[in-house]
Amino acid sequence: MASDLEVIGWREGKLWFLDQRLLPAEERIVETEEPEEVCRALKSLAIRGAPLIGIAAAYGMALGLRSGMWEEEGLGSRLERLATLFLSTRPTAVNLFKAVDRVRRSVFAHRGSGENAAEAALREARMIHEEEQAMCRGIADHGANLLSPGSVVLTHCNSGALATGGIGTALGVIRRAWERGTLRHVYMNETRPLLQGARLTAWELGKLGIPATLIVDSASAFLMQGGRVHAVIVGADRIAANGDTANKIGTYALALAAHHHGIPFYVAAPTSTIDLAARAGKDIPIEVRSEEELVMLGSKRVAPEGTAAYNPAFDVTPGSLITAIVTERGVVRPPYTASLAATEERVQA
Amino acid sequence: MASDLEVIGWREGKLWFLDQRLLPAEERIVETEEPEEVCRALKSLAIRGAPLIGIAAAYGMALGLRSGMWEEEGLGSRLERLATLFLSTRPTAVNLFKAVDRVRRSVFAHRGSGENAAEAALREARMIHEEEQAMCRGIADHGANLLSPGSVVLTHCNSGALATGGIGTALGVIRRAWERGTLRHVYMNETRPLLQGARLTAWELGKLGIPATLIVDSASAFLMQGGRVHAVIVGADRIAANGDTANKIGTYALALAAHHHGIPFYVAAPTSTIDLAARAGKDIPIEVRSEEELVMLGSKRVAPEGTAAYNPAFDVTPGSLITAIVTERGVVRPPYTASLAATEERVQA
Repeated sequence: MASDLEVIGWREGKLWFLDQRLLPAEERIVETEEPEEVCRALKSLAIRGAPLIGIAAAYGMALGLRSGMWEEEGLGSRLERLATLFLSTRPTAVNLFKAVDRVRRSVFAHRGSGENAAEAALREARMIHEEEQAMCRGIADHGANLLSPGSVVLTHCNSGALATGGIGTALGVIRRAWERGTLRHVYMNETRPLLQGARLTAWELGKLGIPATLIVDSASAFLMQGGRVHAVIVGADRIAANGDTANKIGTYALALAAHHHGIPFYVAAPTSTIDLAARAGKDIPIEVRSEEELVMLGSKRVAPEGTAAYNPAFDVTPGSLITAIVTERGVVRPPYTASLAATEERVQA
Repeated sequence: MASDLEVIGWREGKLWFLDQRLLPAEERIVETEEPEEVCRALKSLAIRGAPLIGIAAAYGMALGLRSGMWEEEGLGSRLERLATLFLSTRPTAVNLFKAVDRVRRSVFAHRGSGENAAEAALREARMIHEEEQAMCRGIADHGANLLSPGSVVLTHCNSGALATGGIGTALGVIRRAWERGTLRHVYMNETRPLLQGARLTAWELGKLGIPATLIVDSASAFLMQGGRVHAVIVGADRIAANGDTANKIGTYALALAAHHHGIPFYVAAPTSTIDLAARAGKDIPIEVRSEEELVMLGSKRVAPEGTAAYNPAFDVTPGSLITAIVTERGVVRPPYTASLAATEERVQA
């Protein structure tokens, strides 16, 4: 990957993406013209990470609007069907909703201007992709300022290139701090049940040559107790108006432990992840995934037949436990209701 | 198993035990005459759980003292070699140290009384085994009194029959509360990396017909946030004089979350787990196990080649986060330095 790991893109009328389920054992690229295949990739987490979900859905909409795909049913009807299809894949990341909405508006806006619907959708998808990449760079710059020389940072799940289509959010900050020489070490939570930390973050940091150590999720608090962690930094799937943040299950437990030990807890996320329509965490839907992800390890059953499991994919960390939210626009601090609203205004302006 | 799951015992001059690594897929009994094989079983966690470790080591000492095994090197030398062998297996559980010491004293005490060394050792091992079973029953009775009708309880790792040779410590309490009709539901942390919750606790509770749901360790705090847990109850590997408690990695994070949510956090352990010689948690050695347990899932590599991992098997929960410690002698409450010392005095008396 060197400095630019690409995980998704458009090539000759097709969308290509890296199937993240197979990492780190295999780096398989999938090429498709079918919006339904993009949906399956989103549901199965072949494509994952809030920003990347938005990018993929936008490209997927463009695939679904190419000529011959909608003329019979009409553009409006086709757009609604595609939007419904993509919106049903993952309920928690708001980037998905924003991306689908942008593509829809863009197509309507250019209707009759002579521009082809697919071209308008593709242009918007590319713009979303480029914006996310630029936002990652901005987040990295602002976030790296927060870390003192010699910092040891702990992160959860994967919020790198694989999650964003850019250099990453939390991992973008880590990468920039490493380039500046202020980062000493990274602890990576393995992130059960799907082990994005062990599979994806370890893979990315390995490629970047950043020193990192894997731990089980439940060991984070023990490391903090021993004074071995200076800051926690994670990504986000949706940030409510009051700063409450939905992110991978386990983030809340991590924030509680950081709070108890007086360790700063940072959320790194593009403004595309902020949802002012959600006033608080309780307004964010939490995706509950299959029991299989817990009772099976690959094809092998670990829990006895008949064992019930509960598998929420995300949790919500109250804004009160978050030291700061790092966006591409700068570092946002409490009280979040005021600071996030001001950030969104600057984005709209 | 019905009401009495037996996991270890003595039969015709041999020790037999259930190989817990193979559960729940296979219930394989191993029979051995070799103390070295018992040591290997302890190191590999074929036999695990603080009370059971003590029982197994005591029986293992008896195996190593049978006639023909030590006459040449001399009884004193043989005893020391056996003690060193067993004490090197697992550093954290104090039950191991106490059991080895009891067998050694018992053999010395009966030397010259005409009793065979092996018989003295076996008698002591059987006594330890029976005492642990009785202690479990006492813990269960006292602990069940702490749970209100309709209780939903969360537990970590496995502290049942498989860990104790009796009905269990934390799981003994759960079982007794279920029999009394005051328990409504159990949440089981899967307990990474070795998944004792998913493999062993799910298996035991399934056999007992107690309704239970498996979660990833990092989801515990999220459940507490939602008001879905009324009490947390865990076992212990060693309790220091001030109440600081070493238990399976993840216990500390769980205690922090329970504390934050005002949920009672109980430790259930026999007095054999109390070590007044350890004044505080810092005096308890923490076993660090192989990186393999994190980077591999069975024979499949999950993290990329070259990924470093840190795998502490235990952590220490400060007494200040523990609502009460349930022993066979009753419920011990803070301040623990006074209450634990008093409990130990009653045991000695």
